[in-house]
Amino acid sequence: MSIPAYLAVDWGTTNRRVYVIDDQGRVLATERDGQGLLATPRDAFAGDVAGLRRRFGDVTVLCAGMVGSASGWANVPYVEAPAGLDRLAARLHWIEPRRTAIVPGVAKLDAEAPDVMRGEEVQLLGAVASGAAPEGALLCQPGTHCKWARVEGGRITWFRTAMTGELFALLKRDSLLSPFLGEVIEAGEDFREGVALAQRGHALGALFGERAGVLLGMRESGQAAARVSGLLIGEDVRGQSLAQGETVYVLADPVLGGFYKAAIAEMGARAVLLSSHDAFVAGINAIWRHANDR
Amino acid sequence: MSIPAYLAVDWGTTNRRVYVIDDQGRVLATERDGQGLLATPRDAFAGDVAGLRRRFGDVTVLCAGMVGSASGWANVPYVEAPAGLDRLAARLHWIEPRRTAIVPGVAKLDAEAPDVMRGEEVQLLGAVASGAAPEGALLCQPGTHCKWARVEGGRITWFRTAMTGELFALLKRDSLLSPFLGEVIEAGEDFREGVALAQRGHALGALFGERAGVLLGMRESGQAAARVSGLLIGEDVRGQSLAQGETVYVLADPVLGGFYKAAIAEMGARAVLLSSHDAFVAGINAIWRHANDR
Repeated sequence: MSIPAYLAVDWGTTNRRVYVIDDQGRVLATERDGQGLLATPRDAFAGDVAGLRRRFGDVTVLCAGMVGSASGWANVPYVEAPAGLDRLAARLHWIEPRRTAIVPGVAKLDAEAPDVMRGEEVQLLGAVASGAAPEGALLCQPGTHCKWARVEGGRITWFRTAMTGELFALLKRDSLLSPFLGEVIEAGEDFREGVALAQRGHALGALFGERAGVLLGMRESGQAAARVSGLLIGEDVRGQSLAQGETVYVLADPVLGGFYKAAIAEMGARAVLLSSHDAFVAGINAIWRHANDR
Repeated sequence: MSIPAYLAVDWGTTNRRVYVIDDQGRVLATERDGQGLLATPRDAFAGDVAGLRRRFGDVTVLCAGMVGSASGWANVPYVEAPAGLDRLAARLHWIEPRRTAIVPGVAKLDAEAPDVMRGEEVQLLGAVASGAAPEGALLCQPGTHCKWARVEGGRITWFRTAMTGELFALLKRDSLLSPFLGEVIEAGEDFREGVALAQRGHALGALFGERAGVLLGMRESGQAAARVSGLLIGEDVRGQSLAQGETVYVLADPVLGGFYKAAIAEMGARAVLLSSHDAFVAGINAIWRHANDR
């Protein structure tokens, strides 16, 4: 059996995923749990990592994600875009030299539309490094905060974040639309109608109409949920001004990825779904190699 | 001293406003309290109205607003648009004949964008009936659910509701942006910059950037609050596709009205602020006269 070369931890606000990786970059084991930042006091990170070493091997640990934010283990300075995997490796924040490091996030210092990411950069650049996406690509990573990024020559040259998932969650939890948004949603006709409405530029104005449609008996409550999802995801996709036939590489699980794929198709572009897991592994392996080459 | 001819109650979800009105349509007294639907169990409405009669006079009571909804006193059927004050008067829902009635709301049965209102119809039509707005007018009533309505020939012919105020409240209460949105907001440069961003069609995508701007030290947190407000109100106004120089009659208090006025001006149109209070009185007086002419 192979022995681990290092451990990689994708450490987010809610979840944590650990990858045990050998010297060929192969994943020997992976584990996901709820030990994200919300469940980890600041003084518990060091002990958590020591625990991972006891279980998986006494090797270097590379962490990525919100663990490097003000509410994480250490507030690691962002690397400014354009940013590639070599730059991220050069700017690793070593908690303990050659033992434990945090991958920096990326910032876009654009006066009109400043933006930041932490964790997504590994997947976005990894998707290109592995060859899953071409050298010059538009990528999309849907979620609570959906990232859209352009990678050119192995560097993230531009990106933008939309609060699409968070807005849906807020509306679902505690709004006028809450009673309808608990339904199971499919990327079917109702969803596509929501996308089409968003395409006409009236997403925010159309939200209330979904409730009215149910109140007036013109629609089922399950239709409203799919239409609202279509409105929000459609508004997100519309905001990117995709060219006809343009390809978007989408990093997501099949369900969420399927919604974005349907919305992107509705706007006349094309989505290719990629595995976020594989992209993360390719990205963190490249950072590991760069760090060892130095 | 004049004696009351009737009592009018603008009875909403949170607040209630009582108007004591004489036979010339003059307001003898007015009173606002927190006895909205949320504070009133269904079986308490009759007693509440009896209490108003004991205090102000044993006369007819006309109620308008959410009191006529499924969560109010009685679920009063909507009048279908186009709807004028005469139709509303003809369709008064009498709880007790000639004693207590509820003004029906208005529904727009448009398959793509159905919509409903309860209470706003009295103000919108009243603004025109009083001459404050012309016979053919575009009106806007900002708030938790902002109403945009076109009145032609004394009838509401079209309207649309935007959840602008509710979205701002959701973002303020419990989102990534919450830490910034408690600041006092003015309709100044930051607000107008938010409106300008919305005008470029990226309102939802720009929300996250406001947080990033503060994180990166590019903006003050007070700027972010005004910019987010500008983004949401700007998106609301943009969605109306106003013509250059078009006039919008805005029914709101001076603060909220001022925000909409600034956003409307930024889009090249013109806002005239009207008193919601006066508009309600003009509308309910017209309904009262129509009801007595029958």
